[in-house]
Amino acid sequence: MTRGLTYPLVAINFKTYVEATGEGAVRLAKVAEDVSLRTGVCVAVAPQYSDLYRVSGKVRIPILAQHVDHYDPGAHTGSSCMEAAKEAGAIGSLVNHSEHMLKLSEIDLITQKMRQIGLTSVVCTNTTSVSAAVAALGPDVIAIEPPDLIGTGIPVSKARPEIVSDTVAIIRKINPKVQVLCGAGITKGEDVAAASRLGASGVLMSSGFVKARDPLAALTDLANGAKS
Amino acid sequence: MTRGLTYPLVAINFKTYVEATGEGAVRLAKVAEDVSLRTGVCVAVAPQYSDLYRVSGKVRIPILAQHVDHYDPGAHTGSSCMEAAKEAGAIGSLVNHSEHMLKLSEIDLITQKMRQIGLTSVVCTNTTSVSAAVAALGPDVIAIEPPDLIGTGIPVSKARPEIVSDTVAIIRKINPKVQVLCGAGITKGEDVAAASRLGASGVLMSSGFVKARDPLAALTDLANGAKS
Amino acid sequence: MTRGLTYPLVAINFKTYVEATGEGAVRLAKVAEDVSLRTGVCVAVAPQYSDLYRVSGKVRIPILAQHVDHYDPGAHTGSSCMEAAKEAGAIGSLVNHSEHMLKLSEIDLITQKMRQIGLTSVVCTNTTSVSAAVAALGPDVIAIEPPDLIGTGIPVSKARPEIVSDTVAIIRKINPKVQVLCGAGITKGEDVAAASRLGASGVLMSSGFVKARDPLAALTDLANGAKS
Amino acid sequence: MTRGLTYPLVAINFKTYVEATGEGAVRLAKVAEDVSLRTGVCVAVAPQYSDLYRVSGKVRIPILAQHVDHYDPGAHTGSSCMEAAKEAGAIGSLVNHSEHMLKLSEIDLITQKMRQIGLTSVVCTNTTSVSAAVAALGPDVIAIEPPDLIGTGIPVSKARPEIVSDTVAIIRKINPKVQVLCGAGITKGEDVAAASRLGASGVLMSSGFVKARDPLAALTDLANGAKS
Repeated sequence: MTRGLTYPLVAINFKTYVEATGEGAVRLAKVAEDVSLRTGVCVAVAPQYSDLYRVSGKVRIPILAQHVDHYDPGAHTGSSCMEAAKEAGAIGSLVNHSEHMLKLSEIDLITQKMRQIGLTSVVCTNTTSVSAAVAALGPDVIAIEPPDLIGTGIPVSKARPEIVSDTVAIIRKINPKVQVLCGAGITKGEDVAAASRLGASGVLMSSGFVKARDPLAALTDLANGAKS
Repeated sequence: MTRGLTYPLVAINFKTYVEATGEGAVRLAKVAEDVSLRTGVCVAVAPQYSDLYRVSGKVRIPILAQHVDHYDPGAHTGSSCMEAAKEAGAIGSLVNHSEHMLKLSEIDLITQKMRQIGLTSVVCTNTTSVSAAVAALGPDVIAIEPPDLIGTGIPVSKARPEIVSDTVAIIRKINPKVQVLCGAGITKGEDVAAASRLGASGVLMSSGFVKARDPLAALTDLANGAKS
Repeated sequence: MTRGLTYPLVAINFKTYVEATGEGAVRLAKVAEDVSLRTGVCVAVAPQYSDLYRVSGKVRIPILAQHVDHYDPGAHTGSSCMEAAKEAGAIGSLVNHSEHMLKLSEIDLITQKMRQIGLTSVVCTNTTSVSAAVAALGPDVIAIEPPDLIGTGIPVSKARPEIVSDTVAIIRKINPKVQVLCGAGITKGEDVAAASRLGASGVLMSSGFVKARDPLAALTDLANGAKS
Repeated sequence: MTRGLTYPLVAINFKTYVEATGEGAVRLAKVAEDVSLRTGVCVAVAPQYSDLYRVSGKVRIPILAQHVDHYDPGAHTGSSCMEAAKEAGAIGSLVNHSEHMLKLSEIDLITQKMRQIGLTSVVCTNTTSVSAAVAALGPDVIAIEPPDLIGTGIPVSKARPEIVSDTVAIIRKINPKVQVLCGAGITKGEDVAAASRLGASGVLMSSGFVKARDPLAALTDLANGAKS
């Protein structure tokens, strides 16, 4: 059994939502595993650090951390050690999410160090030019998310298709090995299908699943959209 | 069974040391519990976020987080949510450790919010004047640690007794309810005993236990020093 | 001729408003000097770093920087060196403005270092408890400004009189040598008079003067309010 | 008379060195102008914000700021407004110096905004991969400086020639319009000549001029090295 990412991919950021904390994180991760098994689409979840161990022991889908620091293990208090995330069951991490933006030199260090210790880097970007810059650092995945659409329900893949296609094009030019996800406002299968048509390998999303009235139904629709 | 802090207290910061990560964190926490039961001295441990749940399920001593953010649960990626720390078994947290210093307004928000949700705040300070400032915010505990002595093995309670006694005096004047710990360079029972004689209610330490050749022997000595 | 602060004081933060940049900063500083001479009320102005030298050579009122870093002169690029601010004509500086909040340990270092090199510290605070904390650090002046009222035209001294009087009371208890200003929403003389009645030694303000249609008339009214 | 940058370029960061503050900044800028006029090599200087106006009025060489923030003019206290730097006589600015590193999204915003208002961006980088990333953002100039060599007197162009040539190569591939400087440890003309042979258009330096016993002799040697 492999727990690495495959494409198309639906990656779900649990943020610090109450619904996705503690037992809630386990419950939602099980829904994600269920949908992944039934649809064949890779679904990865990114719980908080405090839930990584709890969730990773209960499901067989890829677990991501939401952030990792670049420090080596040692005298660093309150930091998010990537070796600890790996030990707790994460196979990779989001990096530079728009709610946790990093210095350029940190993103460089983090993506290099993740590669060395065998973690998959999913670097978030907010513009096409930032995406081009990150592509030059050689991460595994780039997730383009215009911050003003995050949490709105207005899907980037429909409201601003050009930002997705332009980002895919420039990343392919600079570093064709990088997978591209898009995010912000994704709630439906048709949003994911639109993303695929624009060249994305999947989506990064959060409230569209975590806060859905019926997370199972919502994710089933999303995964089916990824297959189309 | 209560899991709150009692005094004298030996509080141990696991930082992100390899020895105190994952199974290592559980093993060291069990040593801490063992010493606490045998000596009757309260021993609290502060593992990484990724180990809070894993450790709190295995031992009956107070578990602290190493840092908490002030954000309420919600759309905050990669942050250290105090509600999540509580859910994972922490009864409180270090705040403003010298390896994770915070803005004054954040310390204000964090200590207030911890009080509201029933978490114990252990605010770290680096000078006597900073300790006085923090006392005015009304935390539960202040841990004074001169950063230049951290990790040196030169105990603050012997090398700079006046910084401990001055800090105890000014905190008592501003807010007599606050408990005072001291830290930096603490490795032996006599260092803890010296701290007690200066008015401290215990110590905050890290490598003196985590990196000790024989953590059980080291902590037994430290706890006995706290009782003397 | 002294250029130190006297009380009652009207302190004006030029921020980076276009109207208060370059020649605009000189023009507004001259209006401030004019009103100060005519009313006998001390008016201090805080232009941007790039305008400190330009403004200080043209007027004889106290000039404050808007921020100073704690670094000593040396290999620090792009920082706000307090020795350089002094050399450019500043007699002191705002510290920890709500638009430039600092770590507690930085505020401690900065206020100590300002005292050593003879600069007057005006530390901004956002709550009564933060004001109490800062009082313990021994700055020269504390300016309490609830951030949600800044720039609104709703004067803190009328909308929330208790935050001003409570802050004055707790600062007097902890450190009676500290002068207390209040700010946020101050635009009229009656706002300043209300602040005085609550125990404040003056006000810290910005857009009420900088963005006024008639800055001369506005400041004359404000200064007269300070005298009443 | 143009005050823009031309190549080969010797750019000098005044940092917050005592020798390069206030009248010292003016004196050193005059030395730089003198050398530039005699050798025909463009010499730019980057004084502190507090000295931009004072220096720019006295010399006819390009003046750079050491840092600019991305905020538009307005309610931003203590920030480094690029419009104010321009008003004070700067023709551009260093960005992301290793002593003032920025978030990737900030570098993106700053370089775009500098282009819009007609300022020249000199973005500092610490590694070849970071240089590649910055090239994708389209700044005017990239200055590669390995931080561990800064201030050592060990010239990057001799100690690590491959980092300069690799950086030049990857930047040319991603964005051939970008000029490349190198820095760290540069003190002699032969260091500059070595940089030129590796493809750099000049150097960024600081203490090799500012702290030189004879700044005039040191800079004359450096400028002559740039011509060779």
